[in-house]
Amino acid sequence: MTSSEVLPSVLAAVVNRIHPVDEGDIDRAWRRLDSLTKPPRSLGRLEEIAAHVAAIQRTDQPSVARKAVILAAADHGVVAEGVSAYPQEVTAQMVANFASGGAAINQLCRSVGSRVVVYDVGVAADVSHNADVVIDKLVHGTDNFAHGPAMSRDVCTHAIMSGVAAAKRLVDEGVDIIGTGEMGIGNSTSAAALTAVLAQTEVSVVTGRGTGVDDAGLRRKVDVIERGLAVNAVRPTQPFDALCSIGGLEIAALCGVMLGAAARRVPVVADGFIAGSAALCATSICPTVRDYLFASHLSAEPGHAIALRQMRLDPILVLDMRLGEGTGAALAFAVIDGACEVLSGMATFEQAGVSDSEVHR
Amino acid sequence: MTSSEVLPSVLAAVVNRIHPVDEGDIDRAWRRLDSLTKPPRSLGRLEEIAAHVAAIQRTDQPSVARKAVILAAADHGVVAEGVSAYPQEVTAQMVANFASGGAAINQLCRSVGSRVVVYDVGVAADVSHNADVVIDKLVHGTDNFAHGPAMSRDVCTHAIMSGVAAAKRLVDEGVDIIGTGEMGIGNSTSAAALTAVLAQTEVSVVTGRGTGVDDAGLRRKVDVIERGLAVNAVRPTQPFDALCSIGGLEIAALCGVMLGAAARRVPVVADGFIAGSAALCATSICPTVRDYLFASHLSAEPGHAIALRQMRLDPILVLDMRLGEGTGAALAFAVIDGACEVLSGMATFEQAGVSDSEVHR
Repeated sequence: MTSSEVLPSVLAAVVNRIHPVDEGDIDRAWRRLDSLTKPPRSLGRLEEIAAHVAAIQRTDQPSVARKAVILAAADHGVVAEGVSAYPQEVTAQMVANFASGGAAINQLCRSVGSRVVVYDVGVAADVSHNADVVIDKLVHGTDNFAHGPAMSRDVCTHAIMSGVAAAKRLVDEGVDIIGTGEMGIGNSTSAAALTAVLAQTEVSVVTGRGTGVDDAGLRRKVDVIERGLAVNAVRPTQPFDALCSIGGLEIAALCGVMLGAAARRVPVVADGFIAGSAALCATSICPTVRDYLFASHLSAEPGHAIALRQMRLDPILVLDMRLGEGTGAALAFAVIDGACEVLSGMATFEQAGVSDSEVHR
Repeated sequence: MTSSEVLPSVLAAVVNRIHPVDEGDIDRAWRRLDSLTKPPRSLGRLEEIAAHVAAIQRTDQPSVARKAVILAAADHGVVAEGVSAYPQEVTAQMVANFASGGAAINQLCRSVGSRVVVYDVGVAADVSHNADVVIDKLVHGTDNFAHGPAMSRDVCTHAIMSGVAAAKRLVDEGVDIIGTGEMGIGNSTSAAALTAVLAQTEVSVVTGRGTGVDDAGLRRKVDVIERGLAVNAVRPTQPFDALCSIGGLEIAALCGVMLGAAARRVPVVADGFIAGSAALCATSICPTVRDYLFASHLSAEPGHAIALRQMRLDPILVLDMRLGEGTGAALAFAVIDGACEVLSGMATFEQAGVSDSEVHR
């Protein structure tokens, strides 16, 4: 599905800076991988990941030593429809929890040696007392997309460019790999709506329980999304318009992080279902983003597998997780780091004086 | 399948020190997990892993900060039958590669913050010039099991007890979790033979290409294993006898590591197909070992899934790996570490002042 829409000029400028990775760089990485002291291809996915990062970084000694997760938070007008098991105030409360280090993402990032950078791109409440949170918002949450567009083109562009700038800042600071995380009560409703449109799938198939709504809540979610798609007349060929109409501010920001990372030739790791919907937006706006994108894990939310299939991305982990925050991205960092260390640090058969296989001699 | 055989007394003494984990400890961990600032069970497998380690360590704040992989190496008489793509000298060459830090396991352990301890429990060549290798061998490789037992009961007992002692030494040094790795040209033939017997499955179903034999090599492997099982009259009810008859010295040592870790209430992580065959031996000798055992990944070798199913173990990772050395165990350490950090470090809803779900209030 090729995008036919006219993008805001600042966004088009970012897209123009995204170039494919070079097949020659991938081949060079495989040649080195096949010279290392192990049966050829015996590290499976790890070797594919290493070759991919090597091609992105244009080296045969890749490294993702310096890691960061960008965690974007925002609120959703659609929660007025009763689509979440948690009240809206939880978004701001969890931002405070991230800032004080008490959330799951804080523990997982510490465990894998990653930073977490929290962005408020549209939380309804004031979180300015948290010095560790970057605040960059024009509005306090989206409008209810069941009745009209979630946000204007200008507001959406601002949120995307906030993500682009966040990625640029980290890359300028020397970060080698960026994970994407999110917090926003109601955002699995937006993610399901975007997935239904951009992967052209029935709403009921891509909609799950999010943080845990009951059967009645799930039926409300499907109904609200179907109304939202009808009211906003969303088209799969217009991903930017879809993001404005039925998206979220944090989803727009993460879409920007992915575009910005790709423009700087830095690998970017999508977390689960919500970040996956941002990846669908980014790859629909600019398919070349896929060259820089890793799917960290397969979420337990049903729409995620459909989003990944649409993007032809294989998840690195399958751990039945559905929390968000970037938790899957942080865990996948460990696998990607290991893959890069293997390619960069292993001895060759020649260096180690190890006899090669009879098949290869 | 209950074991009916008489074990050597030193081995029986180890088995007698292995006690089940307490259901009450598991419940206590789940109560804490459900009080943490996340939708209940939203971290999926991570929460199961955390509860499991918590019960093993008898705490609701588990930690696997201090990690080590025990890498046992040995040679196999059965290579005389032409069952491997690599010559036997590679076992000793790879031991030297481990000692100098050039192998895949060295890079992955560095990446996840783990030690590697290399044991020569029966390499055919002399590796004594490597100061970093612990040497504990009675014989220079097993005998060819196609013609009779791979080793005597005494030699097998020595190798198992070498693994028990290796685990004890690490636990005494403060290690929180032990991974199991192996090196031994020809050992996928032993592992397939053990898996066929202990999981009561056709030889052709559990036998794969190992380090990469061609079609003729694969047919030879199946034929050799079938002859070995017939010559040795191996029975599924006699796992210790099976280990003596068709096993390997490094497989026996890793079986000992698993028994020894369980006896000390320390979690132990099985690597892939070869370590999985050691786990089959350990759990057949003492089913309670399963309470302390994690399956790190699903190997690309076809017999591994069958071994895991027999033990009712779910692999943590599925990355199409088939290298051995403990590479899967090292990567799984990162997931287990993250799981423990989540349980031990996260704030509760009450501590963080976060509103709980409507369902739970």
